[in-house]
Amino acid sequence: MTIQEATPWTMPRDATKLMDVALGNAPADLAVINATLLNVYTGELLKNQSISVVDKWIAYVGEGAQDAIGTKTMVIDADGKTVIPGLIDGHTHLGWMCPIDQYLRYIIPGGTTTIVTETLELYPVGGLDAVQEFLASLKEQPIKFLATAPAMASISRKAGHMPLQDLKHLLSFGNVVGLGETYWQSVLQQPDILLPRFAETLKSGKILEGHSAGASEKKLNAYIAPGITSCHEPITADEVMQRLRLGIHVMAREGSIRRDLKEIAKISKTGVDLRRLILVTDGIHPEDLLEKGYMEYVVQKAIEYGFDPVAAVQMATLNVAEHFDLDHWVGGIAPGRFADMLVIPDISSIRPLTVISNGQVVFDNDALSVPPRPYPFSDESRHSVHLSTQFESFHFTLETVSQSTQVSVRAIELVTDLVTKEIHLTLPAIDGNITSDIGRDLLKVAAIDRRHNQGKTFVGLVKGFGLKSGAFASSAAWDTSDIIVIGTNDHDMAVAVNRIHALQGGYVLCDNGQVVNEVPMPVWGLISDLSIQELVAQLASLKLALAGRGVMFPDPLLTIITLTGAAIPFFRICEEGYVDLKSGDTLGLYI
Amino acid sequence: MTIQEATPWTMPRDATKLMDVALGNAPADLAVINATLLNVYTGELLKNQSISVVDKWIAYVGEGAQDAIGTKTMVIDADGKTVIPGLIDGHTHLGWMCPIDQYLRYIIPGGTTTIVTETLELYPVGGLDAVQEFLASLKEQPIKFLATAPAMASISRKAGHMPLQDLKHLLSFGNVVGLGETYWQSVLQQPDILLPRFAETLKSGKILEGHSAGASEKKLNAYIAPGITSCHEPITADEVMQRLRLGIHVMAREGSIRRDLKEIAKISKTGVDLRRLILVTDGIHPEDLLEKGYMEYVVQKAIEYGFDPVAAVQMATLNVAEHFDLDHWVGGIAPGRFADMLVIPDISSIRPLTVISNGQVVFDNDALSVPPRPYPFSDESRHSVHLSTQFESFHFTLETVSQSTQVSVRAIELVTDLVTKEIHLTLPAIDGNITSDIGRDLLKVAAIDRRHNQGKTFVGLVKGFGLKSGAFASSAAWDTSDIIVIGTNDHDMAVAVNRIHALQGGYVLCDNGQVVNEVPMPVWGLISDLSIQELVAQLASLKLALAGRGVMFPDPLLTIITLTGAAIPFFRICEEGYVDLKSGDTLGLYI
Repeated sequence: MTIQEATPWTMPRDATKLMDVALGNAPADLAVINATLLNVYTGELLKNQSISVVDKWIAYVGEGAQDAIGTKTMVIDADGKTVIPGLIDGHTHLGWMCPIDQYLRYIIPGGTTTIVTETLELYPVGGLDAVQEFLASLKEQPIKFLATAPAMASISRKAGHMPLQDLKHLLSFGNVVGLGETYWQSVLQQPDILLPRFAETLKSGKILEGHSAGASEKKLNAYIAPGITSCHEPITADEVMQRLRLGIHVMAREGSIRRDLKEIAKISKTGVDLRRLILVTDGIHPEDLLEKGYMEYVVQKAIEYGFDPVAAVQMATLNVAEHFDLDHWVGGIAPGRFADMLVIPDISSIRPLTVISNGQVVFDNDALSVPPRPYPFSDESRHSVHLSTQFESFHFTLETVSQSTQVSVRAIELVTDLVTKEIHLTLPAIDGNITSDIGRDLLKVAAIDRRHNQGKTFVGLVKGFGLKSGAFASSAAWDTSDIIVIGTNDHDMAVAVNRIHALQGGYVLCDNGQVVNEVPMPVWGLISDLSIQELVAQLASLKLALAGRGVMFPDPLLTIITLTGAAIPFFRICEEGYVDLKSGDTLGLYI
Repeated sequence: MTIQEATPWTMPRDATKLMDVALGNAPADLAVINATLLNVYTGELLKNQSISVVDKWIAYVGEGAQDAIGTKTMVIDADGKTVIPGLIDGHTHLGWMCPIDQYLRYIIPGGTTTIVTETLELYPVGGLDAVQEFLASLKEQPIKFLATAPAMASISRKAGHMPLQDLKHLLSFGNVVGLGETYWQSVLQQPDILLPRFAETLKSGKILEGHSAGASEKKLNAYIAPGITSCHEPITADEVMQRLRLGIHVMAREGSIRRDLKEIAKISKTGVDLRRLILVTDGIHPEDLLEKGYMEYVVQKAIEYGFDPVAAVQMATLNVAEHFDLDHWVGGIAPGRFADMLVIPDISSIRPLTVISNGQVVFDNDALSVPPRPYPFSDESRHSVHLSTQFESFHFTLETVSQSTQVSVRAIELVTDLVTKEIHLTLPAIDGNITSDIGRDLLKVAAIDRRHNQGKTFVGLVKGFGLKSGAFASSAAWDTSDIIVIGTNDHDMAVAVNRIHALQGGYVLCDNGQVVNEVPMPVWGLISDLSIQELVAQLASLKLALAGRGVMFPDPLLTIITLTGAAIPFFRICEEGYVDLKSGDTLGLYI
């Protein structure tokens, strides 16, 4: 029985066995002895502690485990070292880029033993089937996974449609802890769509994860009042404080999308109660995982930025467990908890020497000792890019409606690599057409639905991407089932989209009618088949090729896939048109 | 919809209404303005705060509630005063002595707005019906009640029998949060009986309340490992620390049974994390409630004994809510929570000026503004004392088995008013009988089953009660369905028991063949029909009469009813015989 098969609350521990080992009447399977133990419940570092483990569980913690050490008990002498609970990532996105076994090769050595992941990447591209396959891939792994159901706040009305029945089905899963991040604007703009999903989640006794980036005070109150219990979006200590005061758990991010911890760490000087502050990655890119690590890196950074090391570990263990009401099961080293523990050099050096998960040594002597399980994705998952037609240049033509030689249009301006705004331009119509203008860095951008209205396309304009020749396309596009393509010319745009179709997903860079670089992601058009090292190499090569063509953003892949994102201000695109996130309105090219 | 009808997690808030009021687009029903607010989440005292309430709920907390103040909004100006969350008692026993409406007349003015009560008094005397009637009496009151199902660890095998079906039924109730206190000795001695009850509770997603008085380190680990999540029994700071370190929530008592807070408060000097420390009453006697108050008294005492006032309030609000996973609903002043708030003079003076519960002002200007609801107990509840016979002197005769003039017997010695031990005595047999010996303070004590084996009686001996003449009987006897009677002579014992039968419950003192004092408790033989003031007067009169007959214990009523208690060491009595709590063995009079 694992945490995946039943709700975390309802797993049967073998209570008799645990009691026997605690009393010293039966031998432990594993004993950690002579440790300095971080007790996250009291915040103490206690010397000379030992821990008896039987099966997946901790049976005993104290100074006298020796009675339970039998001839077959595996003994780990932690003399001179420190033992802390396995780390928990309470908010991340592992449903894209790599299959889970590839991620785990680099996550486990860092000592993360429980992960709560979003599933919102999967639903738009493959519905319930895709989410269920992803959830299945999380099972029977060396560490524990929990997930949130997708809230499906999308700028695309089509993609945002999720039957309540699908949500109910996912909420019936024991490893689904609640409804994933719901962008606050969507809740205030579309209460009729989202509040019934909230009610359904609360009815099932599960929680509502939040996303309140930039919400002003009253809007923040209004967003929280229906029952939102977390936010991982604050980027300053003041925003953290504002949210803590309103009774929600606040997640401080240090991951690939954002690195907010340095700013947020200023809160450590205020002396406020930090029990509701949590460290998370909010997603990690394969290259960052290989280079920096996972939650152990985040905790180390928290210490570096000024948090007390004990508080920093609590923020990645007990605090997270309490947020998800999982503290009877994980987040601390105490009887009846899963035996998830890390042997580290000392409390300020978070890199584990030994990782114990579910009572098993899963990492030791610089090597994984339990291999992650590869998941055999289905044929269906490998056929998720559906286009009704071969794309040709004319699909990207922008004919002007009137006979005028000047047209007024809307365009997306990239204010930063992620933040956008609406701009209005007056452009010349050449032979009744609008074209990309490399000189002004004004390129065509198209969103093409690859699932619902297969091939449905909206073509708009984007300013500031930097591409000087060719076209760049992605089958991943946040919150939607769209392919996004940005191009300096219509022909390369068509070639890139057709190549994505042929690959059934991936990133493709074309130039002069040829594919010059590509990263296939054939599973749901989101996930690569490569080893994580190979994937990192290919992504680096692609970024280099983009940089060579003028794209100077730190991560242009992230820039392109977030063009459809409902969560990042202010002006987005999907197959239905542009979308103004402030008003929620869908808008056309021409003013 | 109240907290009683659905699980606390699943109550529908009117989210649209809350959002409208939060945004200032609709008027609040109630607004508290200009307050100094104790934010229990951050531990801050914040100035100039206002709170908008709609229906039962808090919609907004911050500095700008004025937009939501309409012509019909009730405004409470808390200028110069402090607002704290309604207090929560996480462990108490309200199923005896008074009906709930009588208790509430004195509980509500003190600002307790949520109570979690045990139900273990009811089950032995009336089974599921009695528990359900008690739960029904808690509904539709001005404050919220939650309850635990009785674990029914009893020294009487008959009374300890609870079909799993009964437990399942109770766990299906939305206002039942888990399994009530299970005495640790019972779990270690009778795992086959209690572990299935644990498993059933965990399966329903609910929690296991503990009771680990005096458990040594390994036994404590063994007791906690199956999933116990609290203990309200530690009496020193060291015992608290030991339990906090093992990951359970610890409840510090300051009630009528024990007052442990002064000793426990030494922990406030250690600097350890107190998030898992909770203040409780563990039951209050009517006289203490009238004289001292309820949770407001406990919090005030905590401050007096050295806890920081902010921490003391957290210990009676947020910490309790977090233990029961109710923190999305109660325990703090934040959007989406029940509007349960107290206006107090300042943070170190916990006596409320105004009490708001479920959005209603329930106490103000020294008066209750919403009357508690009296509950019409059933006829069945008023006929719970079943004896097969009129009792006569001979029922209490102790004939010696052998012809010897000396017999070796076991007796209960009252080491304190509550703690007992087994003693062995050699007594003279007079005409083949053993009699009470007032000179040695060795009296007969009998336990008579009034429900299962109706009239089944065990007669033993008790040393140290102090009664010099007559007999004293009680229809309340912890964890059993017994009447307990202690007497200096057999005739008065019979008269007292028969009077209890006639009254259908209560305390009765007889002397010289006459009833000299009595307190009727006709509901399940546990609960009085009197007003709480009248009851207090009658109890005082009874204690005076007992003191006049030599019983010098502070509360002889508590002494007699705990003689059957499975939770207090070491030697007890029930209708089946003496019981040695250390071994769990049932023993006879003769050695």
